[in-house]
Amino acid sequence: MQKPILVFQTDFTYKEGAVCAMYGVVKSVDRELEIMDGTHEIPQYDVWSASYRLYQSMRFWPKGTIFVSVVDPGVGTARRACVALTADGYTVVTPDNGSLTHLKQWVGIRAVREIDERVNRLVGKGTERTSVFHGRDLFGYCAARLASGMIDFEGVGAAYPVEEIVCLPIMEPQMEQGKVRGIFEINDPNFGNLWSNIPLELFTQAGFNYGDRLLLTIRHAGEVVFAERVLFQQSFGFVARGEPIIYNNELMRIGLAVNQGSFCQQYGIGFGADWQVQFEK
Amino acid sequence: MQKPILVFQTDFTYKEGAVCAMYGVVKSVDRELEIMDGTHEIPQYDVWSASYRLYQSMRFWPKGTIFVSVVDPGVGTARRACVALTADGYTVVTPDNGSLTHLKQWVGIRAVREIDERVNRLVGKGTERTSVFHGRDLFGYCAARLASGMIDFEGVGAAYPVEEIVCLPIMEPQMEQGKVRGIFEINDPNFGNLWSNIPLELFTQAGFNYGDRLLLTIRHAGEVVFAERVLFQQSFGFVARGEPIIYNNELMRIGLAVNQGSFCQQYGIGFGADWQVQFEK
Amino acid sequence: MQKPILVFQTDFTYKEGAVCAMYGVVKSVDRELEIMDGTHEIPQYDVWSASYRLYQSMRFWPKGTIFVSVVDPGVGTARRACVALTADGYTVVTPDNGSLTHLKQWVGIRAVREIDERVNRLVGKGTERTSVFHGRDLFGYCAARLASGMIDFEGVGAAYPVEEIVCLPIMEPQMEQGKVRGIFEINDPNFGNLWSNIPLELFTQAGFNYGDRLLLTIRHAGEVVFAERVLFQQSFGFVARGEPIIYNNELMRIGLAVNQGSFCQQYGIGFGADWQVQFEK
Repeated sequence: MQKPILVFQTDFTYKEGAVCAMYGVVKSVDRELEIMDGTHEIPQYDVWSASYRLYQSMRFWPKGTIFVSVVDPGVGTARRACVALTADGYTVVTPDNGSLTHLKQWVGIRAVREIDERVNRLVGKGTERTSVFHGRDLFGYCAARLASGMIDFEGVGAAYPVEEIVCLPIMEPQMEQGKVRGIFEINDPNFGNLWSNIPLELFTQAGFNYGDRLLLTIRHAGEVVFAERVLFQQSFGFVARGEPIIYNNELMRIGLAVNQGSFCQQYGIGFGADWQVQFEK
Repeated sequence: MQKPILVFQTDFTYKEGAVCAMYGVVKSVDRELEIMDGTHEIPQYDVWSASYRLYQSMRFWPKGTIFVSVVDPGVGTARRACVALTADGYTVVTPDNGSLTHLKQWVGIRAVREIDERVNRLVGKGTERTSVFHGRDLFGYCAARLASGMIDFEGVGAAYPVEEIVCLPIMEPQMEQGKVRGIFEINDPNFGNLWSNIPLELFTQAGFNYGDRLLLTIRHAGEVVFAERVLFQQSFGFVARGEPIIYNNELMRIGLAVNQGSFCQQYGIGFGADWQVQFEK
Repeated sequence: MQKPILVFQTDFTYKEGAVCAMYGVVKSVDRELEIMDGTHEIPQYDVWSASYRLYQSMRFWPKGTIFVSVVDPGVGTARRACVALTADGYTVVTPDNGSLTHLKQWVGIRAVREIDERVNRLVGKGTERTSVFHGRDLFGYCAARLASGMIDFEGVGAAYPVEEIVCLPIMEPQMEQGKVRGIFEINDPNFGNLWSNIPLELFTQAGFNYGDRLLLTIRHAGEVVFAERVLFQQSFGFVARGEPIIYNNELMRIGLAVNQGSFCQQYGIGFGADWQVQFEK
């Protein structure tokens, strides 16, 4: 049977040698293993983004793919290191610190085990007494052993209840009296788009159609910071360069963009529970 | 026969999960396919740079390599999505929006076909109704099918005349009365070098030799912004640290640099048709 | 016998097409070769960082791995291009400009040869007359030939004495009267941690233990810029967010961090011989 691909995401960046050392460990466990970069540019210490990015890309990979997600501000403390199996057939190796939030809520976790450091931690490199680089010494090493078939899921360590997995709060969108309300859950930090928690189907239920100019109201901590009519269309190029647009994003949720610009920057908008968004005809 | 390598270049960056999702699609089409990063740091929406970077690196890859270039400000609008065959034996999968400019003019395009979305678009992931991520749903998917042998070039979609390929204007350098004139076509955004459109052979024809201190005049929108004698030599280290130099760049065109510094920053110089450069003895 | 992995580190970044062209050369030499990114974000022209990053990650890779390190401000000048064999079984292809400093001093170099450009330089791409991109035309090409077995170590070129390898000065830490003194050798430019040249064992000899609040004094060019008691613990999460901590880093040397923050930025501290650090009870 072919060995699963390993997809890594961290907040390490490539600015120094950490990713390189981590990948060296994987290749030292089993030269045949295939390593892919998910991203190493998760914002530092941002577990929410780690959770969202796992959800964003996972379904597009072959079943069985092993994701290693290391955004780990609590490295070396009492937080659990774990391996989780998703309901749709993927494996995630990660600190259990909230990075499984979206997968647990939106996909489902079938089972989870705590990594036993006594058997699944790198030894022999003189780094046994350091506690600050579990990406290299624990997560990468354990994931490589799993992928190579040296251990199976049971070999990770003791199972614990899925209910104990640490989750961050997720907010649900609402519809009433022709108004659809939600929050900005995350942004696209490259293009400056904002992604709401409102699925396209809620727009459909509300009777919003491509071509409508919707009244868009954005509140920050309750205060209105944006209130304009904006076109709802299928892609950016339907408005002039520099103009805002409401669109259906790549995960079938409602997003905001500026054509060939940055909505975040142009209007000074961020994301999180404090950033509320409302659409009406 | 061995399956061709896929080389990707985009303006997506690795700041979020887009590249990861796109590569997952490729691996889901055919696990064996080999994916290489060209770059994901093309400046946003900058089709000219996409075109130049394709030209810059393509010839160094094995014949048959498939390049996927997605700088696509018009995604989801009427612009064509295409697959082109170059005169020297490579394949490019890209929006037909100017990204084939340099290849068409400097290498040649043998044939081009429009991607038929009815057969070469990803289905089954719940993202059929989004129009904003053709890197994942169309270009990556179609390129993977090509590379894996599931379709051949004819299977891409209908052919259209090579003359219809969208091209951006390219300017030609000139020589008269011992003066060589051109523009800065592009920069090296890392080291701050500027690359002109003047081939080394024009310097040779003009009688310029390594060791000459040439009078270098740079005009921005017609106005002189730099006029100094600068050494023409074969590499940066022939002048002191912080000093400017004229050199023959990696594509055999005349470049400007500052030894261990940035010419762009030190002198406030950019690139494009407005930035004219002139050399004389 | 399996062909060794090639691990590349440069200061090229992915902002333009240089890495892509370099990797294309490798794949054109031998399609089977496996290329891994070490990092392409070494600070520009910073040979010291190149040397440190090689040391930081090398031991975690399979024996036989070939590292290609190209931070090369002197490209095209008289500096040597070389291939070195380390005492612990790795190969490094690099300009001999100081990038072998830490390996030579801390690991050992068994033998070194100068790359013979007459046989180990790329030909046939029209770039024979450029002298500014040895990553593509010399180092990448020669490393690929080595990895593919087309040449062996003798085939690189003439051997020269290991003693002639260019080394940058490394400073040693000191202990006297309960005080441990050293310098900051390097930082973690992502998380803003500073890494001293003081090994954990010197702390142990000095009687410093996890849980101690040590008097930490940092001097810049002799002047005190930081003097506070700081906790020595095994990881960042042992202090409150935003608080400084002394810890044992991933290479078993003493580091400084701010929990979920940046020590460098918060206190304005850099690294190099001018940045002295002292610990006492």
